[in-house]
Order: sequence, then structure tokens, then C-alpha cells
Amino acid sequence: MSEHYDCVIVGAGPAGLGAALYTSRDRLKTLVLEKFVPGGQIINTDRIENYPGFERIPGPDLIERMQKQAVTFGAQIKTSSEVTALKRLQEGDIEVSCDTGKYITRAVVLAPGSDYRKLGVPGEEKFRSAGAGVSYCGTCDAPFFKGKQVVAVGGGNTALEETLHLTKYADKVTLIHRRDEFRATRVLQEELLGKANEQNSNLLVKYSTVATVIEGQDKVQSVKLKNVKTGEVQDCPCDGVFIFIGMVPNTEFLRGFVELTENGFIKCDCAYLRTNVPGVFVAGDCRVGAAMQLATAVGDGVNAAMMLKQYFRDPNWWNEAVSDVLQPGGW
Amino acid sequence: MSEHYDCVIVGAGPAGLGAALYTSRDRLKTLVLEKFVPGGQIINTDRIENYPGFERIPGPDLIERMQKQAVTFGAQIKTSSEVTALKRLQEGDIEVSCDTGKYITRAVVLAPGSDYRKLGVPGEEKFRSAGAGVSYCGTCDAPFFKGKQVVAVGGGNTALEETLHLTKYADKVTLIHRRDEFRATRVLQEELLGKANEQNSNLLVKYSTVATVIEGQDKVQSVKLKNVKTGEVQDCPCDGVFIFIGMVPNTEFLRGFVELTENGFIKCDCAYLRTNVPGVFVAGDCRVGAAMQLATAVGDGVNAAMMLKQYFRDPNWWNEAVSDVLQPGGW
Repeated sequence: MSEHYDCVIVGAGPAGLGAALYTSRDRLKTLVLEKFVPGGQIINTDRIENYPGFERIPGPDLIERMQKQAVTFGAQIKTSSEVTALKRLQEGDIEVSCDTGKYITRAVVLAPGSDYRKLGVPGEEKFRSAGAGVSYCGTCDAPFFKGKQVVAVGGGNTALEETLHLTKYADKVTLIHRRDEFRATRVLQEELLGKANEQNSNLLVKYSTVATVIEGQDKVQSVKLKNVKTGEVQDCPCDGVFIFIGMVPNTEFLRGFVELTENGFIKCDCAYLRTNVPGVFVAGDCRVGAAMQLATAVGDGVNAAMMLKQYFRDPNWWNEAVSDVLQPGGW
Repeated sequence: MSEHYDCVIVGAGPAGLGAALYTSRDRLKTLVLEKFVPGGQIINTDRIENYPGFERIPGPDLIERMQKQAVTFGAQIKTSSEVTALKRLQEGDIEVSCDTGKYITRAVVLAPGSDYRKLGVPGEEKFRSAGAGVSYCGTCDAPFFKGKQVVAVGGGNTALEETLHLTKYADKVTLIHRRDEFRATRVLQEELLGKANEQNSNLLVKYSTVATVIEGQDKVQSVKLKNVKTGEVQDCPCDGVFIFIGMVPNTEFLRGFVELTENGFIKCDCAYLRTNVPGVFVAGDCRVGAAMQLATAVGDGVNAAMMLKQYFRDPNWWNEAVSDVLQPGGW
């Protein structure tokens, strides 16, 4: 016999725990299934300054608080429990299969998150934790590099935008890109090159260049850069390395169950976070249109939990359009 | 000469302060205009248990933290500054007129919030603050009335849903409604009446009944109920009064500037929070589709601030549809 729940939440990051707090506080029998340990990406974040309410808090501390809060109201959290498959049953319930068992639930909130794409070079893992110098988010960490030297990696929109952001804080920013031109939108390229061409600019662009190893004692001290055309290698002294080469949503296990984009993000209506499968909501960094911030992930979790009650009240609501929403391009 | 800003935020509640933290941390020159004092609705909330990260915090404390945080990064907050008019100028900038001056800005985040509709009876104001017993949000406050007696007021969807929620906590719930039938959806009415008809039910429904006065010493002790058909008046002893008669968005000053719904909520695409006026975003309880929770308001503010950068990068983005979004009803 499978255990029955009102709501099963997949993933115990900020989005999943935000949803769990609300569903359990609404007296819904709630189970959170987490592949590893609670936290998602912020478990590796030493200092969070951009979650409204906390001037500064280590990621693990914030997650512990969120976890306790949900558990206080009755949410069950199972760690080391990887969801392997989901199936919608005839009656409308959903079966969630996990390496630790099977569960039947009235609704699901998918919150498996995304991971930053890794460079995969020596030193990257070592300096990732505890503010040692490797970061994947300029918006989050740029202020910690005021007056310092950093290397940024990437060539897409986010890479250029985040690099421009870094130049507002760091003394010197070296942007490297493995190809000889950027993928980013024209206007961003122009802005970036304009900045790099300023007199005494603090931004240097190196094309056809890759990082091969990140070095240092306790903190990042330098990066070995290799020109892929000439083969030339040089040491670039720096205090931080920002890696902007994309996000990978943790949605492989959902292929064939809910609609995904080409890049693996979960499709939904962004208003009420409904996927194409009735009863299955989505929240956080794994969905289309996500702003990829801690506070927006939490907001998503809470939003999904609020809408879930609407679904319980009237399952036909699932197919209702959101009223009074503007259609961009159509006004 | 009007002062120039990158971003003017209207309203210093959780949505506005969330936006201000992000825009100021992004080194955008940010001005927050607040009609009264910072806080929005939560300034009147004694205990918040449902903002992920805080097990329990008084509303004013949380707002003070959010405010300090935004100011630390450079946001300017002007209190007692009521915005009276907005105008989009030829060049795309926006002029914000306020009783304290005029400002020119590249972008605006509208976050004026909503207020709960008031009953307007004696005692309502007196017992509103500091957990004295008058509440407008069952989702927020029901757990504080475990084992107690409460009166609920209203007849719409939210009223019935919230009343059902109250019955999970309170020992006795009396729902009064001024008419002799509910406005709420059929399925909710059935669920509510089913609950009321259970043996030993803790829910009592009184139609054609209004509250005329809320009485007590330091806390609510009773409500005077009047039958509008017979004129009969009786005292109903209770520990709390929940008033569920709707929300009123604070958007009167926006009429003619952005598109509003019949009820005054600001229309937007719910993904990126764009209104029909380029450069003007919306965040929080004042918009269509808002879940009306603290965490979702904060998430909105952060989302709007992230999207604002996209707009600065490419103004034409304003008219782009959100890609890969599901159209409810269309799948």
C-alpha cells in the first residue's frame, strides 16, 4: 500500500520549503522529497544579502530556518529520496515513485531547481564553497568583490550583463570567452565593448580564451588562461572567478511527464504556475520565465501553494485562463 | 528642475522594498515614494509566521529590516509623499508627480498595495492592531485562534474558503452574511454547508445578519449581531472577528495612466509584471492574479527589479511575448 498525501513537493530548496510551509499551515498532509539534503543552490552560499529581511545570513542557516518552520506546521521532509517517476492516475491522483517508496497524492509541486553549469576545471569545486572566490551569480556576489580583481567566463546575455554588473564593483574585470565572438544580443555587446574601450577601463575582454585551472591556497589567487588559437598559456592573478555559462534545470526525470522546453525548463502559465498536467504545479528556478533569485523562488512556492487550494476547490479551474492578464505585444 | 532617477518605486511595502533592495544593489539610482510610513499592510500585523525564514516576527520589525537593507545599498525612501500623477514623456522617460515634488525616471515599479475592505463598525479599528482579535486574513491568523471562538463575516469565495480554514483551528466559528444567500461558487457553498450540517459541527451559519459593534476590554470579547430582516439583536461572545469582505487596491491615482480592472487592480502580464505602459512595472497585492501574501509580494518586487534590467537593455522587449508559456485551456 502506498501512503496518501494531499501534496507532495519535489525538492527542498527555497521554493519547495516555501510551498511546504503554506500547505502544512493549511493543514494539508504534506511530504517533501529531497534528492540530497535541503537547501538547493543556497546551501553553497556563504553570505546572502539579497533576501529581504536578512541583512546578511549564510545559506545553510536560512535553509535550516525555512525547514524548521515547515516542519513545525506538520510537513514531512524525506532527504536522500530521489523521485524517479510520476504518473497521473485515472481518478486524478498522482503517483510519485521514489527510490525510497511510492506515494499517492492529490497534487504535486515540482521544485527540483536548477544547477549552474560547471566549467569542469581543477579548482572550481574547491573554491566554490564558503566565499572562497568561485561564484556563478554576479547579481548575488558582485558586492563582495569591491576593489578586487575578478575573471568572468562566458559569452551569452547573462554573461555580458553580469560582467557589466561586476565592473561597478571590482577594480578590474577580465572577461574571457572561448569563441571569437559573443552569442549575446547586439545591444549588450555594444554596451560591453563600449565599456571596455573607455579610457582607463576596468574591463578587459579576451576572446578565444579558456580557463584551464583555478589556483590558490584558501582562496582564489589566480587562473591559468589558455588561448585556444595560439595555445599560449598565462597566469591571471585574481580574487574571484565568475562562471556565467548557463543553468541546467534538474528536470531529466520529468521528461515525458510534463512539457519541457528545449533546454529542459518546465513549461507553465506564469500566473498560477500550472503545468500541462492537472494537479501538478511548478515553482522556482526550474520553470520557464523564472527570475532565478532566492526571493522569487520562495514567492513561487507560496504562490503554488495558494493556487493548489483553488484546484482542490474546483479541478476545472485548471483549464481556466487567467482573467484580465495582458498579452504582451497585443496592447 | 526635476530630479532624475533610474527607478522610482511607488509604495514602501514588502513589494516596493523588495524591488528597491534589488535596484539599488544593482547600482541603479532608486527613489521609493511612500504615502504614509513604510510597511503596507504588515505594519499592522503583530505576528508573522508565514514569511519563510522567520519563525515569528512582528510586522513592524520585518519592515524595518527590509527598509534598512534597501537603504544600505543606496535606495532613497521618502515617506509622507503621495504620488498624485504619472506621465510618460516623449523620450520614454516617466514623470512622477508627488505632493512633495516632481521626478523624472527611466522606469517605475508600481507597488501601492491593497487594503482590506473595512466593515466600518465601532471597535473594528480599536482591536485591529497587536493581535487584539480583529483580522482580515484567515490564512495568516487562523493558527492563533486554536481552541477559541471566532466570528467570520462575508459571503464570497474568499470568505467561505477562509471560514472553512478557520474551522480547522477554532473551537467554534460563526459565519454571518448580510444577504440570505452566498455569492461564492457552488462547490464552496456545498462544502461549507456540508461542514455546518455535520453532527456537533463547530461551524454555525447565520444569514441576513450583520455585525453592528465589536466589544471588549483589551481584546475582542463579543460582537453584537443584528438580523436585518427581524431587527433582532444578540450578543455573540468570541475571541476574534475575521472580516472577509474584499480587498481595495490603492490605485485610484493610476486611473487613466495604466489599464485597471473593473475592481481597480492593475493589469499586467503575470510573468514579467509589465503593465500596458512601457517602463512601468507592477508588483504586489495591487496587480491582477496576486496571491496576496507577504512572500509573493516580495517575490514580485524582486522579479520586477530583475526584469527592469531587461527593459533597460532593450526597450523593445516590452512588447515581446514570454516564450514557452502555457496558455491555460489551450493544452
